[in-house]
Amino acid sequence: MTDVNTLGEFGLIEHLTHNFPITQPSTLKGVGDDAAVIDNGAFCTVVSTDMLVEGIHFDLAYTPLKHLGYKSVVVNLSDICAMNAVPRQITVSIAISSKYSVEALDDLYAGIRAACDAYGVDLVGGDTTSSPRGMVISITAIGQGERTRLAYRSGARPGDLICITGDLGGAYLGLQLLEREKRIWAEHPDVQPNLEDQKYIVGRFLKPEVRLDMVDAFRQNNLVPTAMIDISDGLASELFHICKQSGTGALLEESGVPIHPEAQLMALQFKLDPITCALNGGEDYELLFTIDPKDTDKVRFLPDIYIAGEILDVADGIKLNTKGGNLHPLQAQGWKHF
Amino acid sequence: MTDVNTLGEFGLIEHLTHNFPITQPSTLKGVGDDAAVIDNGAFCTVVSTDMLVEGIHFDLAYTPLKHLGYKSVVVNLSDICAMNAVPRQITVSIAISSKYSVEALDDLYAGIRAACDAYGVDLVGGDTTSSPRGMVISITAIGQGERTRLAYRSGARPGDLICITGDLGGAYLGLQLLEREKRIWAEHPDVQPNLEDQKYIVGRFLKPEVRLDMVDAFRQNNLVPTAMIDISDGLASELFHICKQSGTGALLEESGVPIHPEAQLMALQFKLDPITCALNGGEDYELLFTIDPKDTDKVRFLPDIYIAGEILDVADGIKLNTKGGNLHPLQAQGWKHF
Repeated sequence: MTDVNTLGEFGLIEHLTHNFPITQPSTLKGVGDDAAVIDNGAFCTVVSTDMLVEGIHFDLAYTPLKHLGYKSVVVNLSDICAMNAVPRQITVSIAISSKYSVEALDDLYAGIRAACDAYGVDLVGGDTTSSPRGMVISITAIGQGERTRLAYRSGARPGDLICITGDLGGAYLGLQLLEREKRIWAEHPDVQPNLEDQKYIVGRFLKPEVRLDMVDAFRQNNLVPTAMIDISDGLASELFHICKQSGTGALLEESGVPIHPEAQLMALQFKLDPITCALNGGEDYELLFTIDPKDTDKVRFLPDIYIAGEILDVADGIKLNTKGGNLHPLQAQGWKHF
Repeated sequence: MTDVNTLGEFGLIEHLTHNFPITQPSTLKGVGDDAAVIDNGAFCTVVSTDMLVEGIHFDLAYTPLKHLGYKSVVVNLSDICAMNAVPRQITVSIAISSKYSVEALDDLYAGIRAACDAYGVDLVGGDTTSSPRGMVISITAIGQGERTRLAYRSGARPGDLICITGDLGGAYLGLQLLEREKRIWAEHPDVQPNLEDQKYIVGRFLKPEVRLDMVDAFRQNNLVPTAMIDISDGLASELFHICKQSGTGALLEESGVPIHPEAQLMALQFKLDPITCALNGGEDYELLFTIDPKDTDKVRFLPDIYIAGEILDVADGIKLNTKGGNLHPLQAQGWKHF
């Protein structure tokens, strides 16, 4: 009997799905990217799905249900944007134990609704059922993309520039803060947490946003990233995905990785290295993408895009150039839920 | 605080989703049918999703994991067929506790694979994650249908004929048998169950099939049902859905409802009325559809289709004409998982 932990999450998916053939002419991309791609003529249908489990992916001790609903949608829309496609529809399935009231579910769906409104997507289906314990949320997002503008993980080439939208590590530090306050509250229920000075990082964790604005900006500037992935498990892990699927190496510049001042300060309070939080902390839902160097001017003047390195030959490995000028092989730890 | 049980499953879905607007021009049909419909020009993308929870929808005491995988796919493909569309792709997400080994998941995915092979669909994505307890399976099926050939629940008109594919009640009686053997086994672990004489009904429950052959037959015979739904919750409940959404009544003929001889016998053993099992037992995954009477000849010579009544005006209500010639108002109990 083999413990699933021996394979890890990505290994398990690969193990379970590697011998499923693709037989439909309309299946342009199956398992292995942010989303599947289905050919419908000029436009492709892009599909992605995620499952969130209480006690594994979310802790209702510090996650308001409305935020949970919002974030559950964002997580999925982010995968559609990571294909350079526009999200259009979602389905939402939930399993809930008897401890949840209708009012609690109304809060959850108010958050789902807010995300639908914010990003212009329709809720078109789903399932509700009971669960012996806790809550499970499964969302499938469906988007539309022009076939020639889709950005896969596999398209990076040596010489391409590595770009990042927004700042990283904030969601991870927000989570550390919430976990600390939860422990304090468990020991001293009379002490109220004060999160006022950390609104930014707490917000990054509880209410992340989708970089749909970037997909729009790419279209307006006639730019197609050579490869793209959303940063859900941490920058290092995502860069490894791009390099593995593109058959390349990479050089990441520490000085190019954007970190918010509030995240910097909180990392120091927790005695953590800020760059480690940015590399291995997850759930920021920014985009990591690569561009052909001839497109440099197209991104240079776009707000909130940071150039943070270069794609190398596979033989060069995947390295971090620190601010101190040292070259380290990069480790991809990511977030492990198993 | 409102207990979710006060709303019921359908009431809860309606309650949670009724104020979500449809804003995308491509969303032809949202919540409320077997599947959502997305416009992609000549062809529509049809999407349906279902969540199965251990201890609620399946009991691993008598459900082999391979069968569970197969059935999980069938349940979803059946919804696509119920739109008169052809299933093409699925995504599969699972949450599993640490009690499951890789070999157990291999069995589950072997069943998923067998269903993909049987019905020619591609597995194109999904998610695997851990769960604090038990297993949750969430599958989304994606199909393709010609816009003018899709069959919604809302299209039945007075005078239309009510048709049923295959026989009903078998899956419910198979489940009753398996539950009885489980109880016997719990009390007398040395007694081996003998299910040899009940292979048909046990198979109906453990390994249902999708009536994709009917979708093909409809196309070959240039027939478009005026309304269609798959029979997952029991014939009565499904007929109520069609009548409610079409704004009609119906007269169902008991003599027209097909019941397999093995199901007949087992119902009598359990001191149940066979027609009650057919009306209120679920999980047969046959199709209930209505046709314009001018199309009667098109279905009359198709195998495995039974004409079982007529759509009436809404004022006439929904009635059952028993074999004894009595008219009863029909009750829709369906299967309750809450």
